[in-house]
Amino acid sequence: MEIHPYYNADIHGPYARFELGDFTLEDGGTLRNAHLAYHTLGTLNASKDNVILVPTWFSGTSRIMIDVYTGEGRALDPARHFIIFVNQIGNGLSSSPHNTPSPFDGPNFPRVRIGDDVRAQHRLVTEHFGISRLALVVGGSMGAQQTYEWAVRYPDMVARAAPIAGTAANTPHDVIFAQTLMDTITCDPLWAGGDYPDSHAVRAGLRRHARLWAVMGFSTEMFRKARWRELGFSSLDDFLVGFLDAYFLPMDPNDLLCMAWKWQRADVARHTGGNLAAALERIRAKVFVMPIDEDMFFPVRDCAAEQALIPGSELRPIHSEFGHLGLFGLEPSYFEQIDRHLGELLALPA
Amino acid sequence: MEIHPYYNADIHGPYARFELGDFTLEDGGTLRNAHLAYHTLGTLNASKDNVILVPTWFSGTSRIMIDVYTGEGRALDPARHFIIFVNQIGNGLSSSPHNTPSPFDGPNFPRVRIGDDVRAQHRLVTEHFGISRLALVVGGSMGAQQTYEWAVRYPDMVARAAPIAGTAANTPHDVIFAQTLMDTITCDPLWAGGDYPDSHAVRAGLRRHARLWAVMGFSTEMFRKARWRELGFSSLDDFLVGFLDAYFLPMDPNDLLCMAWKWQRADVARHTGGNLAAALERIRAKVFVMPIDEDMFFPVRDCAAEQALIPGSELRPIHSEFGHLGLFGLEPSYFEQIDRHLGELLALPA
Repeated sequence: MEIHPYYNADIHGPYARFELGDFTLEDGGTLRNAHLAYHTLGTLNASKDNVILVPTWFSGTSRIMIDVYTGEGRALDPARHFIIFVNQIGNGLSSSPHNTPSPFDGPNFPRVRIGDDVRAQHRLVTEHFGISRLALVVGGSMGAQQTYEWAVRYPDMVARAAPIAGTAANTPHDVIFAQTLMDTITCDPLWAGGDYPDSHAVRAGLRRHARLWAVMGFSTEMFRKARWRELGFSSLDDFLVGFLDAYFLPMDPNDLLCMAWKWQRADVARHTGGNLAAALERIRAKVFVMPIDEDMFFPVRDCAAEQALIPGSELRPIHSEFGHLGLFGLEPSYFEQIDRHLGELLALPA
Repeated sequence: MEIHPYYNADIHGPYARFELGDFTLEDGGTLRNAHLAYHTLGTLNASKDNVILVPTWFSGTSRIMIDVYTGEGRALDPARHFIIFVNQIGNGLSSSPHNTPSPFDGPNFPRVRIGDDVRAQHRLVTEHFGISRLALVVGGSMGAQQTYEWAVRYPDMVARAAPIAGTAANTPHDVIFAQTLMDTITCDPLWAGGDYPDSHAVRAGLRRHARLWAVMGFSTEMFRKARWRELGFSSLDDFLVGFLDAYFLPMDPNDLLCMAWKWQRADVARHTGGNLAAALERIRAKVFVMPIDEDMFFPVRDCAAEQALIPGSELRPIHSEFGHLGLFGLEPSYFEQIDRHLGELLALPA
């Protein structure tokens, strides 16, 4: 397969492939010759109790999780932990619409759910690494959805969990928001039902997609204070183009749509016949629920309502005027807060 | 001119026309044979000191202002007040892209600013009614933008002002939000640069427009609590179609775009060389600034920052989990709050 100009190791850092073979999905489809792209840092210790699993968010890859969430002297420290960064299905590095051979590529790529990701990751963790317990699962946004799915689906395997800026059951508001994101792409005539000649053809749709993230991804305070200046941009338009368009325009539209569909349907209550409280009661992990206080679509109160249903959990809000996309680590105080909470969580006995 | 299936008195109630003649606009264009559509309730008293002016918001007409904001025994009571409901330019009843004769119709309709509306309204008030002072100007959203413009442009004419859920200077976040709204329509190939055969041709764009209002127009709490049930809808989809699509689909796309462009550029600081504080200092009216606490795009803090710059003003937040579109009066508590604040404002000497 030819090298994609965006989904490659030059841009996203080195990653290994874990082969899943023909992987049957919860919605009935099969991912043939499926794989997970992952990367590890650190060393597995003898007792195998220093393992941290880090899944990815919508549009993100292992690269940003490595860059923003780990480092020497950080709470997630490769000197002490064995950290597995795993790319979600559809993100362009793991099996995705754009990198799957015909005829299951593009718009024919089967429907994937958060539960599929976590089952695939479970195989990576158990079969490939022989690991039976995770000291911590931590992820943001759709990574939080996977974190919750891990804690509910495999309660005895997860010692600690830190869902950041995300919920265990997607909210109706998020269903609608994600749909409007999808619509920005699918309304592009050049998307052509997913059969576009190359992803750059759909750049008008991708640009609309990027601009809608501008509306919902940050906070009104960020814009009021023009805090995009801190990121090196000279004007609001310069920021919209230089940050958001630059980020989304290189991506594959069908890959984004695959993830958005999955995001919409995340719900741990699928394990308990729709009973969210019963699902969250299954959790044995020590959980820090970490919403971002200025998040416009995973607001603290939605996260707090779930946290109240998780035995022994704590609500640990993060302050960031960058809102949801504060997840990108756009200010020093974000790093400090993440490390403080994750450090305290990791210090708890489990 | 033929009767438009949506912009007519059967749907929006009776209205009169005030002829503006050839009206030169702030951006340089001319509205030829321009008119304002307006309706009045109540009787002008002998001292002409019982006049209330009520402009309209984006997509709204005088009808909803009459239905939701006035009534017997209400703070705005036709038994005591002479109330002028005036439709903003571009809203489909006053001069608008769809009702202007060729060649200045549709995409050729000139750029209109909030200041143009207020200058036209000033002529209606002074020339037609011979009124030199307004006891109150009150409006929501873009109606608040017009309210602020009145208080800054004609400080000696406005005794009291109540901007609800809107700002005096549009915020950067709102500029971006309004742009995404515009893009939902203009990206429709059938919009055709504004030269669509009839507005129904652009219904895909209008539906996207409606759905984006679902994301930003309410609050996450409204959706979490499924408060659309109170409005008589049976499911989330039933609400999206039955409320939002039903509301926006009959409208004219170019009319909406005309208003959105105007919304983006509202700024009373145009009177003072960009100095917002200096503009707001000009206000002589007693002002109650009335943001809605769950508003996602005119948040309380943005409104409060402006209120702090207005001499003698008060911040009077309205609680509504319906968010910005709480303006539609979707719950009894909204009426009670509006009447309490406006009643207290009207009781103040001025």
